Amino acid sequence: MYVARKAYEGKFEKYIRMDGKTNFSEGGALHDIPWVIKKYGIVPAEIYTGLSYGKEKHNHSEFFSVLNGAVQGLLKFMQGDMRDGGLTDAWKEALNGILDAYLGTDIKEFEFKGKKYTPKSYAASLGLNMDDYISITSFTHTEMYKKCFIEVQDNWAWGESYNVPLNELFEITINALKSGYTVAWAADVSETGFSFDNGIAIVPEDLSTIQISGKNNKNFSDAGAEKKSNAFLTPVKELEITPELRQKGYDNKTTTDDHGMHIVGLYKAQNGTNYFLVKNSWGMINFPQGYFYVSENYFKYKTMNILLHKDGIQNSTKKKLNL
Amino acid sequence: MYVARKAYEGKFEKYIRMDGKTNFSEGGALHDIPWVIKKYGIVPAEIYTGLSYGKEKHNHSEFFSVLNGAVQGLLKFMQGDMRDGGLTDAWKEALNGILDAYLGTDIKEFEFKGKKYTPKSYAASLGLNMDDYISITSFTHTEMYKKCFIEVQDNWAWGESYNVPLNELFEITINALKSGYTVAWAADVSETGFSFDNGIAIVPEDLSTIQISGKNNKNFSDAGAEKKSNAFLTPVKELEITPELRQKGYDNKTTTDDHGMHIVGLYKAQNGTNYFLVKNSWGMINFPQGYFYVSENYFKYKTMNILLHKDGIQNSTKKKLNL
Amino acid sequence: MYVARKAYEGKFEKYIRMDGKTNFSEGGALHDIPWVIKKYGIVPAEIYTGLSYGKEKHNHSEFFSVLNGAVQGLLKFMQGDMRDGGLTDAWKEALNGILDAYLGTDIKEFEFKGKKYTPKSYAASLGLNMDDYISITSFTHTEMYKKCFIEVQDNWAWGESYNVPLNELFEITINALKSGYTVAWAADVSETGFSFDNGIAIVPEDLSTIQISGKNNKNFSDAGAEKKSNAFLTPVKELEITPELRQKGYDNKTTTDDHGMHIVGLYKAQNGTNYFLVKNSWGMINFPQGYFYVSENYFKYKTMNILLHKDGIQNSTKKKLNL
Amino acid sequence: MYVARKAYEGKFEKYIRMDGKTNFSEGGALHDIPWVIKKYGIVPAEIYTGLSYGKEKHNHSEFFSVLNGAVQGLLKFMQGDMRDGGLTDAWKEALNGILDAYLGTDIKEFEFKGKKYTPKSYAASLGLNMDDYISITSFTHTEMYKKCFIEVQDNWAWGESYNVPLNELFEITINALKSGYTVAWAADVSETGFSFDNGIAIVPEDLSTIQISGKNNKNFSDAGAEKKSNAFLTPVKELEITPELRQKGYDNKTTTDDHGMHIVGLYKAQNGTNYFLVKNSWGMINFPQGYFYVSENYFKYKTMNILLHKDGIQNSTKKKLNL
Amino acid sequence: MYVARKAYEGKFEKYIRMDGKTNFSEGGALHDIPWVIKKYGIVPAEIYTGLSYGKEKHNHSEFFSVLNGAVQGLLKFMQGDMRDGGLTDAWKEALNGILDAYLGTDIKEFEFKGKKYTPKSYAASLGLNMDDYISITSFTHTEMYKKCFIEVQDNWAWGESYNVPLNELFEITINALKSGYTVAWAADVSETGFSFDNGIAIVPEDLSTIQISGKNNKNFSDAGAEKKSNAFLTPVKELEITPELRQKGYDNKTTTDDHGMHIVGLYKAQNGTNYFLVKNSWGMINFPQGYFYVSENYFKYKTMNILLHKDGIQNSTKKKLNL
Amino acid sequence: MYVARKAYEGKFEKYIRMDGKTNFSEGGALHDIPWVIKKYGIVPAEIYTGLSYGKEKHNHSEFFSVLNGAVQGLLKFMQGDMRDGGLTDAWKEALNGILDAYLGTDIKEFEFKGKKYTPKSYAASLGLNMDDYISITSFTHTEMYKKCFIEVQDNWAWGESYNVPLNELFEITINALKSGYTVAWAADVSETGFSFDNGIAIVPEDLSTIQISGKNNKNFSDAGAEKKSNAFLTPVKELEITPELRQKGYDNKTTTDDHGMHIVGLYKAQNGTNYFLVKNSWGMINFPQGYFYVSENYFKYKTMNILLHKDGIQNSTKKKLNL
Repeated sequence: MYVARKAYEGKFEKYIRMDGKTNFSEGGALHDIPWVIKKYGIVPAEIYTGLSYGKEKHNHSEFFSVLNGAVQGLLKFMQGDMRDGGLTDAWKEALNGILDAYLGTDIKEFEFKGKKYTPKSYAASLGLNMDDYISITSFTHTEMYKKCFIEVQDNWAWGESYNVPLNELFEITINALKSGYTVAWAADVSETGFSFDNGIAIVPEDLSTIQISGKNNKNFSDAGAEKKSNAFLTPVKELEITPELRQKGYDNKTTTDDHGMHIVGLYKAQNGTNYFLVKNSWGMINFPQGYFYVSENYFKYKTMNILLHKDGIQNSTKKKLNL
Repeated sequence: MYVARKAYEGKFEKYIRMDGKTNFSEGGALHDIPWVIKKYGIVPAEIYTGLSYGKEKHNHSEFFSVLNGAVQGLLKFMQGDMRDGGLTDAWKEALNGILDAYLGTDIKEFEFKGKKYTPKSYAASLGLNMDDYISITSFTHTEMYKKCFIEVQDNWAWGESYNVPLNELFEITINALKSGYTVAWAADVSETGFSFDNGIAIVPEDLSTIQISGKNNKNFSDAGAEKKSNAFLTPVKELEITPELRQKGYDNKTTTDDHGMHIVGLYKAQNGTNYFLVKNSWGMINFPQGYFYVSENYFKYKTMNILLHKDGIQNSTKKKLNL
Repeated sequence: MYVARKAYEGKFEKYIRMDGKTNFSEGGALHDIPWVIKKYGIVPAEIYTGLSYGKEKHNHSEFFSVLNGAVQGLLKFMQGDMRDGGLTDAWKEALNGILDAYLGTDIKEFEFKGKKYTPKSYAASLGLNMDDYISITSFTHTEMYKKCFIEVQDNWAWGESYNVPLNELFEITINALKSGYTVAWAADVSETGFSFDNGIAIVPEDLSTIQISGKNNKNFSDAGAEKKSNAFLTPVKELEITPELRQKGYDNKTTTDDHGMHIVGLYKAQNGTNYFLVKNSWGMINFPQGYFYVSENYFKYKTMNILLHKDGIQNSTKKKLNL
Repeated sequence: MYVARKAYEGKFEKYIRMDGKTNFSEGGALHDIPWVIKKYGIVPAEIYTGLSYGKEKHNHSEFFSVLNGAVQGLLKFMQGDMRDGGLTDAWKEALNGILDAYLGTDIKEFEFKGKKYTPKSYAASLGLNMDDYISITSFTHTEMYKKCFIEVQDNWAWGESYNVPLNELFEITINALKSGYTVAWAADVSETGFSFDNGIAIVPEDLSTIQISGKNNKNFSDAGAEKKSNAFLTPVKELEITPELRQKGYDNKTTTDDHGMHIVGLYKAQNGTNYFLVKNSWGMINFPQGYFYVSENYFKYKTMNILLHKDGIQNSTKKKLNL
Repeated sequence: MYVARKAYEGKFEKYIRMDGKTNFSEGGALHDIPWVIKKYGIVPAEIYTGLSYGKEKHNHSEFFSVLNGAVQGLLKFMQGDMRDGGLTDAWKEALNGILDAYLGTDIKEFEFKGKKYTPKSYAASLGLNMDDYISITSFTHTEMYKKCFIEVQDNWAWGESYNVPLNELFEITINALKSGYTVAWAADVSETGFSFDNGIAIVPEDLSTIQISGKNNKNFSDAGAEKKSNAFLTPVKELEITPELRQKGYDNKTTTDDHGMHIVGLYKAQNGTNYFLVKNSWGMINFPQGYFYVSENYFKYKTMNILLHKDGIQNSTKKKLNL
Repeated sequence: MYVARKAYEGKFEKYIRMDGKTNFSEGGALHDIPWVIKKYGIVPAEIYTGLSYGKEKHNHSEFFSVLNGAVQGLLKFMQGDMRDGGLTDAWKEALNGILDAYLGTDIKEFEFKGKKYTPKSYAASLGLNMDDYISITSFTHTEMYKKCFIEVQDNWAWGESYNVPLNELFEITINALKSGYTVAWAADVSETGFSFDNGIAIVPEDLSTIQISGKNNKNFSDAGAEKKSNAFLTPVKELEITPELRQKGYDNKTTTDDHGMHIVGLYKAQNGTNYFLVKNSWGMINFPQGYFYVSENYFKYKTMNILLHKDGIQNSTKKKLNL
């Protein structure tokens, strides 16, 4: 919650600086976490619960309607009434007043396990160096082994990623897991072959093998709709994902930056297919509880980027990236 | 400033209760003062200056853009996303966060001249009983000597007034001044014959005797535009105002509720015309400094309502009003 | 229909006086009836059928689209083009032209059972004195035994109600019925426990005992959706309604002013629960035909206000209200 | 006024039939006159003054705001709420109610100079045969001597014109005047060289010879702005207008259908330039009072179309047009 | 496709000439075909396939969003920024650039079966004289045997039709078919009794004999929804269509100009009902494949107009129309 | 022009990738030049004049209205209608069709001084290595000697700058000029003390010493308005600019990224003030023709960033920036 709150501060500040020509919304990207920790530090979840006094307060939709209304009101003022003097100092305080009311009062200092901290000193005490965390992606329209921007709405912070060939992206993930590092994973989850309920995400060659019924508006484009198929139980032939196919999905806007998850394990099926074991925040009602398996092809097709500690990357790649 | 701040609280609360079907704006009416004092009490101006830390903060236009944006955002949420649970408790706190940032932190308790007060106990210590203050108007479309609503935008609080014949409205004002009571005066000031700079407000029979030049956007419909005329120096024939003329101005929307001022004196010119001496908040650059004279006809034509202590009203009228 | 037609006249007049800062819509409140009778009188339904020449004319949605379009057009003119002269006299005539076309030509005089009447003389002949009809409600945020405004959209007429403690509101209703007076009832009907089809309105402690299916857009927020439950047949435990719970529903906007009905009887079930027998205008297809039962708890929770002849109120309350 | 009123009826009927995909505005075209006379007849100005009871009623801007609001409301209903039954019969009656209120009650029968008429019988009594009146224009993008549509906003009635070469358009006008027929003239008047105040309209080769100051919003694009130039007093060299230049003005939207006037005479200046004497409805404050002179080049450049009795057209042209 | 492309050129040109006061949309009318052939000629479908390089290009919705955006942008410029110079020549080229990208590059010359053609010379080689093709309709609000405009949205080209009595419209169609001419048919197809799937279009007296389920958004107002009824199998009593009924459907907007089809045959059922055999472009999955039968009553009720070679019209009618 | 055209391609591509959450407008930043050269190469001005066939074509406002309309249309399609298949390939071709029509056909190959080039090969032939060009700025809210983003609207390309202390920014500029490198300069020019007409830009301590009259809408916020003052002739006391003052102007939105110019020389006045000589693209009508002088304080206050060859930077700074 501390990261979410501070990311809102970052978002509205950027939005005003850019005269509204950027994304001010509820979503976020993997980059938000290192961005907040680097700029503000971090607070234990027990200390900043994000709620001052009652669970009914957590109506995110009401919250964002009020915050966004205030931000748009400020923007309108800037574009209309504002005279020579420019903006006052009060607007940030006012917007923080809204954050305080809905997400809990901001924390400057706190005591934790008998010690006093600021968010920054607490982050330091954990030994977190955000410069060690690297974002990696793979696209063909931008130079290999160079930094690039992932151009998706949620990248409001203009965070950079390293661009590597598709196979290398896959190998980095394998290498990290084998070296004991988990990998943060941003991916498109609104796909026919993605079924958290069934605990699996695949790219069947024949999409008609999956029946979708109902809707689940809470998540991305009905990613949680009820899907029935043997394809989730017995291996089906998957579409082999080339860099060209992947690029096309990005170019024609069918691959989007939906959601952040956590790759924690590796699994090789009898038929030789590689799967990643992924932890998701959508509850424990599926099997395996809170986890699901992602096929190599799904990973290659629908990954937006990964974020990991640079020590999880194989040396050959590190060298090419000058890390 | 305390009244203004609390009136904002009252306004946004009513606006939300009424689903936006009321006026939420920067303006106010005479009714706001007794309404706030009765509901919240009052605070000395030295204590609540309305500014926390710097004069540049007082950008009213920026302030209202942000506050109104947040209020409209909440309304939009109510009309769209709101589910069964209804609103949270947080929205008022959030809106008060905006008021705190722009107008200074709200005051619950304070010390003044060595004594501790709450706003309510302070109001009590002044012996203010708001029920003694009476609003009076005069219209022909509603019953005489009964309460009515003045239907103008700024009457967001749905304050009531007593309706009396036009001459009686004039006599009440005279009687009050003679009895030592001043009279709060809400009137239309965006009229050709109104010139604060020249210290006079009249209703010349021939409007072409006054030349208007320039604009003064800061006040009501250029009430402060430069106006030149001998009519302001030498008495001219004024239009005699009947109840029908007055009513017509209200019905066809040419008489509006512009501004609140303070009638403090009475003056009879050589030619027999009655004038009220009125104190205004528009500065001291005119003559007489901060004051101006209002002719009987102007008063009869353009008064929206008056607010005064009931003991200023003659007994004959009091009886008819059951006061 | 005469009341409806004249209420439209009142609504658009107020809307224009208030510069659009009030509610101009199709809905109405209990206050509309005494308001119209007092101001315009009343006409027998046989005389003003509300239709000039053909049933297909009664398309309320088309009617209001045209009327509202004209009213908004006038408002836009006022906010833009209007010059010094203000509004003409023609606009009311024009809007009445729309009312005449859709609701039937206005009636100034008529003959009924051999006698000539105006609407006002006819109301007088019925001995109706609207000042005898009193609106009562119960809220904790405003003073007890004083008049207050019910702040809901449909109270466009700014009608006042007396505020009494919740139990007293209930007792007044009982007393009126026992004294031979029926009670007009404005209440929220878009509640899970409200089922006109099943002839009952309750507040089950466990809402999941009622299954809702389908929608019924014609009425308020699907108040007429199909609902199935044993709760409607066999008594279930109801939530006990306190003044705090009632107030919360009003504050968080889950209790709204949906609909006006007519309380005509009283019934005590074997288990001791009190029910009111209520007449509704939604047809005769339910059982008991056109009527339904409202539990004490539902009444306490979801009543907006009641309107009744003051002689139906017990003397102890009358005294406190100075009636 | 009768023509104006009936043209409004025609305009809103067409606008609704076309689902709003046509022009509904205050303007009109020369075609409106024969269109109304043919469809509804005509009424003497003494009989239909266009005002029921008071000059203040004639606020055209208020009138059109209300009428247009109602029409747009109906359109919105058609695009949204309208179900299977379609529109009622009431909407035309409602819109006519607005016309009646602002323009005076419609006339079905009247007595004039001792005789009873309907508008149609009165038109017949005048011997007006609208089929004798012909509209003529000249454009190069459509076939010569064939009918075409003038594609300008005000041609809401889709009136047709005959297309002839530019010189022939000029000669027809000359011929008509010489044969004793006047010519209705629709032209663009928002041109630098057009000065009603100076009584002349020309196309100076060098536009900088004319100084424009001020604005005159009442007429078309400041056609009435103050213009000073010797060019209006002493002949200047004019741009010679070819069919190509004329066509370009129409194609690039600098020639528009501003205004209808009346060509009544012919005048040849000493330097050989031909001028038409034109009667205009903009008052008598210029010289020659109410009239002005239009040079041949202006006529050729900025004429939208002319409307005249077919007997005013020379035989050679009549033959080509099969008249 | 060539007709569609050129009709877009005609539509945006007219839309700009008319300052947006006409219909710019994806739909078209029967008139478009002769209009394009006459103005531009025609190209064999093999030559102008309407696609430059890949089937995925044919996203009509994306195409029209881009084209319409550009057109509305131009209109906004005209209404705002445009100064004295008017429009440039570039806008048509720019809009054609969009047509080229989505519909294939425009064709000026081509070779077909060994010969070189322009679209116009190709049309000439086919012997097509568009003046021979006549549009006919039947309405009571406009003069018989005269030309009139069909006032429906899709008639953007202001195409004219001859107006004849309803029976004569029917007889013309019969006569044409018997004389070997097919008839283009524009009709309302969003009717309960219209079922392309069942191969029949009728006007049952009792509409409840047909059950509609589901929706088919691809076509007009769910014209393709699943409809089940014996009425489609066994003859049911049909509503007899009079000119008054037909006119009412047009007047109250329940008969609209949905779709163009092709009447190719005539069939008389055992019970004496006349049916037309109609070819439709909605695929071959129904029975009879791609065709359906239209009853005489449906034809009389829901025909907007027919377009046919004038030699298909009986002489008696030709004479009345001066053909 | 080639840079402008290609920057449009880059802008609309980014705008679509970012779902409209970025700036798509006519403006640009210094970063655009190296961005285009690196991605597309460069073309001599003689070869790509940016005009295909006539000077009237260059109506930038019409052009951008059409282009922006098309882009917004595409965005609307993406947010609404777009189904599973995503975007087609045609949209870029369509938008390029608009660029071709208004800015001249794109160039893939050309011959220049007898040699054949592509834009990329031509850039290579000039020896331009864009990685040598460095953008530098100075703000206190972001880390020193690190890369940062200048958060202004026109930085649509998310170009990075190095952040250095304010004095160092000034010294780099001096050093570059002394080393023979000119410096591209992006600055706020809509300031009272900026007067291109008077050939000078200063920050007078007393702003009232400058009189502004008139407006000059063509440039940034009336940067070109007529300004009269002795301050432009005789040295006046300037406000001394600290990093805090500079930062405040950026934070309160009074310093914006108006315009790009070219610093070409250095000049020290008798009173010791340093001025830069700057070349501007606003014509030659001022003195010194096309140039003006910028005081050290103005430069420190209102510079957004500078762009220069890295060899123009002093070694001490280079080391800190790891260049």
